[in-house]
Amino acid sequence: MNEIYLGIDLGATFIKVGCFDSKLNLLAKTSALTEAEKQPKVIIDNIAEATEQAVAKAGFSINDVSAIGLGCPGPAKYSVGIIEAAPNFPTFKNTPLRQMLSDRLSGKTIVLENDANVACFGEFVAGAGKGVKDMVFFTLGTGIGGGIVSEGKLLRGSGGNAAELGHIIICPDGRLCNCGQKGCAEAYASASNTAKRATEAIEAGEKSTLKKVLDEKGQITCKDVYDHLKAGDELAKKITDETAEALAVLCINVLHTTEPQRIVFAGGMIAAGDILLNRIKDYFNEQIWKLKKETVEICFATLGEDAGIIGSAALAAETPV
Amino acid sequence: MNEIYLGIDLGATFIKVGCFDSKLNLLAKTSALTEAEKQPKVIIDNIAEATEQAVAKAGFSINDVSAIGLGCPGPAKYSVGIIEAAPNFPTFKNTPLRQMLSDRLSGKTIVLENDANVACFGEFVAGAGKGVKDMVFFTLGTGIGGGIVSEGKLLRGSGGNAAELGHIIICPDGRLCNCGQKGCAEAYASASNTAKRATEAIEAGEKSTLKKVLDEKGQITCKDVYDHLKAGDELAKKITDETAEALAVLCINVLHTTEPQRIVFAGGMIAAGDILLNRIKDYFNEQIWKLKKETVEICFATLGEDAGIIGSAALAAETPV
Repeated sequence: MNEIYLGIDLGATFIKVGCFDSKLNLLAKTSALTEAEKQPKVIIDNIAEATEQAVAKAGFSINDVSAIGLGCPGPAKYSVGIIEAAPNFPTFKNTPLRQMLSDRLSGKTIVLENDANVACFGEFVAGAGKGVKDMVFFTLGTGIGGGIVSEGKLLRGSGGNAAELGHIIICPDGRLCNCGQKGCAEAYASASNTAKRATEAIEAGEKSTLKKVLDEKGQITCKDVYDHLKAGDELAKKITDETAEALAVLCINVLHTTEPQRIVFAGGMIAAGDILLNRIKDYFNEQIWKLKKETVEICFATLGEDAGIIGSAALAAETPV
Repeated sequence: MNEIYLGIDLGATFIKVGCFDSKLNLLAKTSALTEAEKQPKVIIDNIAEATEQAVAKAGFSINDVSAIGLGCPGPAKYSVGIIEAAPNFPTFKNTPLRQMLSDRLSGKTIVLENDANVACFGEFVAGAGKGVKDMVFFTLGTGIGGGIVSEGKLLRGSGGNAAELGHIIICPDGRLCNCGQKGCAEAYASASNTAKRATEAIEAGEKSTLKKVLDEKGQITCKDVYDHLKAGDELAKKITDETAEALAVLCINVLHTTEPQRIVFAGGMIAAGDILLNRIKDYFNEQIWKLKKETVEICFATLGEDAGIIGSAALAAETPV
């Protein structure tokens, strides 16, 4: 009989669930609203219902499921399944998410993991990381999330909170990050902070075609910045160069730490395309040491939004129960 | 019968060899001059002779040895046992060190590893890392070497050159490092560069009691800087504060990458004692994020110069042959 694996991606807005066979082929997929502002019980009911729907859609029942993986925002005590606090889930406070969900799903064992880590592992097993054993992964969104695979295994760290790569400090006493540190890579190079730096520059009087966007829409997005870069705006070039340089420094720093063969970027900002990727590579090649030739590949993720459900199912499949 | 393990530490000046029992108790120890400027054959003869002496001193012969570990400077192709080039070994050029030494030692298998990695592993199994599973290690000398243990295993990276932690960039476009990068932690916070920054400040006209040392001896050492700090010199305070801050940023960056439980500093500079350690901890506590409380311990190594021979023997003992 085929083994069935479930991967759940718990986001602040949507819950996504994928039902997979043992070769990680997708059999069925569902999504539902998270209602993150409600009580834990409601959120967990929403997850359980979306999960049951996915299993039913694939033609199975929850009793046929071999293992369940769940990716959720951190920091958390993943090994014991407890969310201490999560910025976008105001009612979660030392919430035993794993146990509560398991109780709703016939007592099935659930593997809980950080959301960036499961997306990383998804890309590793089925996407841009295929064929390598050592990989580093960055998601470029509101923040910068990270994941590390070392010798084929997700690197979890002593407390399950390794690979918070956006909070690597690249500029001591630099920009204040939401985390409380100064000079984090995230404070410069996330999609939100790329847009924010452009906004600050315009408000400080720098000339740019982006000023019209700011005046008309009241805000600038990262997509606006890259659109105006393509149209030749000088400020957009300066801002995106700074973003690419910060990301190149991040690449150098993780190379000298876990020495991946491949570095994979994901998240909304990669929609900017080659204009972003090539600039990161240019800065990397310019700034990397000359002691030995480095052959690490820098590329974009290929699975899009499915990385999370694939990765959490894959993690569940390899975790001994 | 007891199993016998050998640990060899190949430095630019001295070769050290330790002969251990299966519980890593030291049975005998030898050292010899490396003669690093001579041909590979001479250097390898020196290693082999020191090794045979250590085994004989312990009352065994080379045929009684279960495994041999050898720590040597990188970068190198450790997995195939070849030193491509090493700054302090001018005659090494794609030298098959492992095979050549094995031929001299009755064909025994030799595990080749980076010198900072073996010192890290030595501290992990028998020194400051005892009792934890995840550790990061820094040596503060001419450069800054590094080692990472993750889930009880040395993290080697895709090409065996992981944990080049001194070359994490903490200040883009900052001080030029010997490696060719700008702004490496090593360019600020190694023992040599701490002394060098003091020298530069005095040459630029800053007032300090260190000026007399520079005038009389023609150079300033890191030890001079810490001695004058203890005597109340203001420039020495500024220079050592910058060193401690750079090291604290390194600690934060590795914490957010592999999440160790313990961070261990070794090397000549730790002779400065608590005045250095406490300053690193102060900066760490001041600058670390506030998202969650971090409990990583920052401490000094305890094995001194024996870390390399213990670590290489321990690595050999755990590597399947």
